[in-house]
Parts: sequence; C-alpha cells; structure tokens
Amino acid sequence: MEVDYKNIQVIGFDADDTLWVNETYFREAEAEVGLLLSHFETPNKIDQELFKIEIKNLPTYGYGVKGFVLSMIELALDLSNGTVSNTIIEKILELGKAMINKPIELLDGVEEVLKGLSKDYKLIVATKGDLLDQERKLEKSGLLKYFHHIEVLSEKKEENYKQLLKRLDIEPESFLMVGNSLKSDILPLVKIGAQAIHVPFHTTWQHERVTQKETHGLAYKTVSSLTEILNYF
Amino acid sequence: MEVDYKNIQVIGFDADDTLWVNETYFREAEAEVGLLLSHFETPNKIDQELFKIEIKNLPTYGYGVKGFVLSMIELALDLSNGTVSNTIIEKILELGKAMINKPIELLDGVEEVLKGLSKDYKLIVATKGDLLDQERKLEKSGLLKYFHHIEVLSEKKEENYKQLLKRLDIEPESFLMVGNSLKSDILPLVKIGAQAIHVPFHTTWQHERVTQKETHGLAYKTVSSLTEILNYF
Repeated sequence: MEVDYKNIQVIGFDADDTLWVNETYFREAEAEVGLLLSHFETPNKIDQELFKIEIKNLPTYGYGVKGFVLSMIELALDLSNGTVSNTIIEKILELGKAMINKPIELLDGVEEVLKGLSKDYKLIVATKGDLLDQERKLEKSGLLKYFHHIEVLSEKKEENYKQLLKRLDIEPESFLMVGNSLKSDILPLVKIGAQAIHVPFHTTWQHERVTQKETHGLAYKTVSSLTEILNYF
Repeated sequence: MEVDYKNIQVIGFDADDTLWVNETYFREAEAEVGLLLSHFETPNKIDQELFKIEIKNLPTYGYGVKGFVLSMIELALDLSNGTVSNTIIEKILELGKAMINKPIELLDGVEEVLKGLSKDYKLIVATKGDLLDQERKLEKSGLLKYFHHIEVLSEKKEENYKQLLKRLDIEPESFLMVGNSLKSDILPLVKIGAQAIHVPFHTTWQHERVTQKETHGLAYKTVSSLTEILNYF
C-alpha cells in the first residue's frame, strides 16, 4: 500500500528494541533460569511454564523487569513443587538486579536517525514498561536531547495512544510512530488514523506477536533497518 | 507564617495516604512478614533489616509494591541464612499480590473536597510509585472525573516538580500542592516558589520523615483533615 509522509509533524519512537537492545536480555535471563531449574524440568517446559505465569500475572504486575523476576520466582516454586533451594531464589533476584543495571546498547544508526529527523520534526518517545526503569535507560542512553517529550505508558492500545495525542495536542494525521512491535507500535496507530513504520527486531516476545490476519489491509511500511527511514524524510 | 491563595489556579494532589489509604497496607504486610519470619528474628530486628534492604534497593527498584515484595524475599533469604522454606516465600508473593489488588479506601472528605475545588480550580494528581498500580488505583477510586491531568513520577524532588509545571505550562506561583508527605509533597514545592498544604496521615514511612530543621522558615499550612482546606478556597 502506498503511504506518504507529507503531513507528518511529530514522530514517536518506541524505546525497547527500537532504540536499544532489550528483549535479548529477557531471553538470556530465561536461558539462565532454564539452567538453574534444569534439575526439575526440560528447557522447553520451563519456557512454556514461565510464559504462562507471566501472562497470568500481567494484569497484576504489568510490564517490566520487577514483575518478570517475581514471575520467575513463582515459576521456581511451582516447577520444583516447593523444593527449590534458597540459593536458586537468590540467583533469580540477582539476575533481575543485573538486568535492571545493564548498560544501554544502542541499536545501529539510532543516533544518526534521531539527529537527522530532529532537525525538521518534533520527536517523542512512547514506551511501555516500568517508569523508573525507562527513565533511567533514557538518561543512560544519552538520547534525551533529541526528544521533546517522554511518555511511559502502562499499555499501548488504541485508547492509550488517543489520549496521549490529545494531551500533547497532536492530530493523528500528523503523527508517525516507529517501533519494533506490530501489536504495540504499529497496529493501534494505523487504526486511529496515524501512520507507522515497522522496524523488526530479531527477537519478539511471544505476547507481542500478531497473526497475518490482524495486519491484513492495514497501511504501514516495514523497513529492515532504522537508517532506511531517512530515505523517506 | 501567613500565606494566601489568591494567585492559585491549579491544585495538585498526592494520591497515596492523601486521597486513599496506602501506608497502612505496607505496615500490615510488614507485620505479616514479621510473623512469617518470627522463627529467625525478633519483630524489631526484622523491621530494621527490611528497612535497610528497602533503602539499599531503592535506586534499583524504585517505589511501589513490586520492589517491596522483592525486598521482603531478599530479607527472608538473608535473615534465615538461606534456610527459609518455600512456603514462606510463596506467602510473601501472595502478600504482594493481595496488596496490589486491595480495594481502594478513600480517606474522609475526599469526594467533597475534590467536588468543591474542581468548580473553580484545575485539579491534577502528582503521585510517586508504580505506573500501572497508580493508574489502576485512580480508576478504581472513581475520582478520575475530577482531574485534568494525572502524573506518575519516579521521584518527587524539586527538579521533578519544576519539569512537571513547565510541561503543563503552570507558573509555580499559581500552583498549590496538597499531600501527606513533608518530604515529597510540601518542601520541594515551597522551595520552587509554589505553595503547599500538609495533611498529615497517621502513619509515615521512615524514609519520608524530615527533621524540624528541614522545615524551619518555610511557609506552608498544616491542616488536620482534608475538608479543612475548603475553608481557604
């Protein structure tokens, strides 16, 4: 589908796995917890059970590392039938702290793209997750200077974006969102009359995946790397 | 010190322990964890150790129930020298989920005060804590209709308030903050040239306490109940 960007005035960026690496660290933590619990179950079963517990706890804990750690502890108690050692629980706590304190690893071309676009467009960040965590990551990233506004959302559904755009006085037609998640960064935007560019990341959390049916007939562009965006602006 | 409110156009409210009960639930959880761990230490020692762990973890976890639960688990591992039972860890996880899912208990006079003030003033919420948690509590409270804006902050220091007022286009002189914490809701506001009214709650977390020296010479009013505020507006 052909799209043009001549009405765009404000460009929103997702943060995790769009500006910097994030999902990779969750996958690494899952692999580590798989090793810690290998005594009790196969890696595949551990993965499946963790995902089930995360989804069950999502309405209570929301997104972010702290809820993930609490779910990993619950997994350890469950899978071991209440026999997991204190040492393993302690290692899970440490795993979580290490995740929170990881240095920021910017994705290729991020600085170049933000620098280029910030000359002619207002840039904002719209990210999901833990407030403190995301603020800290932005601070550490050195990217704050490119953004007019930072918004941490508890969810990224149509209604959340509508409210955000209304509050910032942005018409949907003049807004473009850039992100790696079809479910959170692309589909809800297209549905409210804004535009979106999809920049896939090599790893996507199961919960963020969508079916082809869900994207059918929706107009958005997919690029293979962030720098490709500069060709359109 | 005499203060008047003739320039006030926007009134900000803290949420936890200003609009609804919160700290009480943390104290109750502490008492419960004290019972769970009574096998290993005295209640007093448990309290002290928990506070130490919370303060140590605050830069990593921030405010809110999830970090509190992670700190309670760390406490259980520490105090028991790695011998705490899985049952106790499980009970701590359940304690946390119960805290997050507690119904909202509005404080006396909250509806009356918000209803009264919202006729002549713009009201906003400025609260610290977990984003999802605070949004959910506001939703459950039925108070959303009184507020023009909700802001969840990762910290409530002078700089955070300055940025918030700037972003919402509010002059400090026209802003009044109402809250129960001298440290978070009162002192930083007075210091940036805004006004503040202190409504003490019967319980204050140790971390939020301030010395008399810190409040010396600062102009703010203290009222004994929220409804008293209506006398001044």
